[in-house]
Amino acid sequence: METIQDIDDPDLAARLRLRLDGKTKPRGSLGRLEELALRIGLILGSETPRLREPQILVFAGDHGLAAQGVSAYPGDVTWQMVENFLSGGAAVSVLARQHGLALTVVDCGMRRALPPRPGLLLRRIGPGTRDSSVQPAMSQDECEEAIANGREVLRASPGNVVLLGEMGIGNSSSASLLLARLASRPLAECVGAGTGMDAAGQAHKRAVLERVLQRHAGATTPLQALAAFGGFEIATLVGAVLEAAAQRRVIVVDGFICSAAVLVAAALRPQVLQRCVFSHRSDERAHALMLRHLGADAGFPSQPLLDLGLRLGEGSGAALAWPLLQSACEILAHMASFASAGVSDRGQP
Amino acid sequence: METIQDIDDPDLAARLRLRLDGKTKPRGSLGRLEELALRIGLILGSETPRLREPQILVFAGDHGLAAQGVSAYPGDVTWQMVENFLSGGAAVSVLARQHGLALTVVDCGMRRALPPRPGLLLRRIGPGTRDSSVQPAMSQDECEEAIANGREVLRASPGNVVLLGEMGIGNSSSASLLLARLASRPLAECVGAGTGMDAAGQAHKRAVLERVLQRHAGATTPLQALAAFGGFEIATLVGAVLEAAAQRRVIVVDGFICSAAVLVAAALRPQVLQRCVFSHRSDERAHALMLRHLGADAGFPSQPLLDLGLRLGEGSGAALAWPLLQSACEILAHMASFASAGVSDRGQP
Repeated sequence: METIQDIDDPDLAARLRLRLDGKTKPRGSLGRLEELALRIGLILGSETPRLREPQILVFAGDHGLAAQGVSAYPGDVTWQMVENFLSGGAAVSVLARQHGLALTVVDCGMRRALPPRPGLLLRRIGPGTRDSSVQPAMSQDECEEAIANGREVLRASPGNVVLLGEMGIGNSSSASLLLARLASRPLAECVGAGTGMDAAGQAHKRAVLERVLQRHAGATTPLQALAAFGGFEIATLVGAVLEAAAQRRVIVVDGFICSAAVLVAAALRPQVLQRCVFSHRSDERAHALMLRHLGADAGFPSQPLLDLGLRLGEGSGAALAWPLLQSACEILAHMASFASAGVSDRGQP
Repeated sequence: METIQDIDDPDLAARLRLRLDGKTKPRGSLGRLEELALRIGLILGSETPRLREPQILVFAGDHGLAAQGVSAYPGDVTWQMVENFLSGGAAVSVLARQHGLALTVVDCGMRRALPPRPGLLLRRIGPGTRDSSVQPAMSQDECEEAIANGREVLRASPGNVVLLGEMGIGNSSSASLLLARLASRPLAECVGAGTGMDAAGQAHKRAVLERVLQRHAGATTPLQALAAFGGFEIATLVGAVLEAAAQRRVIVVDGFICSAAVLVAAALRPQVLQRCVFSHRSDERAHALMLRHLGADAGFPSQPLLDLGLRLGEGSGAALAWPLLQSACEILAHMASFASAGVSDRGQP
């Protein structure tokens, strides 16, 4: 696997800070929008970064483990929702339209194969992963094929910024398992309600996941864990994240599942985190833990932009946060400086 | 003063919730965006509310109390920044342009009167308020005139949604004093750094405000407190809030200062709060206290949409939150239902 360049350029960072401090506002008064501007500037290597041709890519796949009752929804909902994404009726479709984001769905391996149609890429590894309570969700070969698919999808995608989303009934279980294994945290801290399990459902889910974790006790490297716990859409996402990072694109991360893909990718190549913007803190309670873990690894604040109690996935949180990225760039490019506007700066610095 | 209609219509609220629950997503999975959709629907009296001709109104004024060194910036910055708003270089100008928001500045009484120009309304009560450490910031007559101005400005403004901002060196002191008096909280809890005072500056500010509070111990009604503590821009904002509420417009509240105007308006007419969307939680630490106080009065959650450590004012936070209001309306109007999209709902409700 190739190395990924370190982009934290202290000289450019200093120039970006100077530029932000010279704008007609008290220093730092735009808070985290200024951090965001700095981050985007560093990723795109410019004091006046421009976000071009934003793409929202939604990776979909099914999970054999769903047969164990770890989700509140039947598995057919994955392909049904993909139909809904493509016909424009889902939350992510509506939000993508609102913000002019090009939306592409990648079938990484759903139970049902949909016929080809515009906006849908077929990169199927199989009709859903195997049941990870019985055997690994996928083989190492399948895992590597999915990662290669993600890289290829990303390479063929235009622009310099990508918003990542996902769909897959059962995939919060995979994300919880990956977090528990790769961050070495007790499973109980890593499991939540998914898209809406009640207390009894969550207890059942925890018990199932505890068994899965024990069954694959030997899957300790990032790629072993990814193959053991799945899913196809997460593995494909890992490839997309690695390729986007290698290409120095801005990566807008949605919620718990997408963050799990970043967790795997960053375990392989920590420089990935320099390219990530975390769009929101999910209502899935383990997401806060995952973000803290990633932020500590990144060595800079990785606080998400929004905290709206979202737990939908699809890339909906990434799409909701998108205008803030545009605002950060607009501020850098178009706000006047104290000097240019003839505004008095404060007496004491 | 007229009564303001109670708009909390349980029947419409039930229909809005049913509509949201029927959308192709787990119930409640869009979190606070769903609450926002409900709120906008109730304000505009529709299951598919449409936000029309959004206006951002920035109210500017100067403060005699600024002579006591309660701000890090010289008083001339008020009119200089208004020039900057009008020539398009300020944060709020850039954000308004990004989102297609019409921007109007209202001079409610700055030290320097600017010549008339497009985008600037002259509603000056005087060249800044008097020094409230010596005498009331304004007379009751001036206060009522400013409120009437705010009403008139709002009436002449098109659309059904207004984003409120402000500019006035020294006005975080007025907001702190109004909070302390109207919410009966110790002053120390109500004072912060403003746009950027250091620790020594804040200690000085607290000491000055303590004296102002004692000097006007008798100013206990909302209008007495408003006249005593100022400023002209806050009083004009109070009028705009009351009129927008009476007209049942969506009121998008910016930060600490605008919330202080809502605090006064809600003390006069509690129904005002039903029309408010709080755009963000300011970095000014007393803003959280103010929002809790308003939320308790409103009887429904008044959690702000964003929490980005902003402390700029101008309406910048309101403008940053604006796309979320649009998203809430898009979701209501354009997302498919489980039935229309042929997606299976969960087994158990």
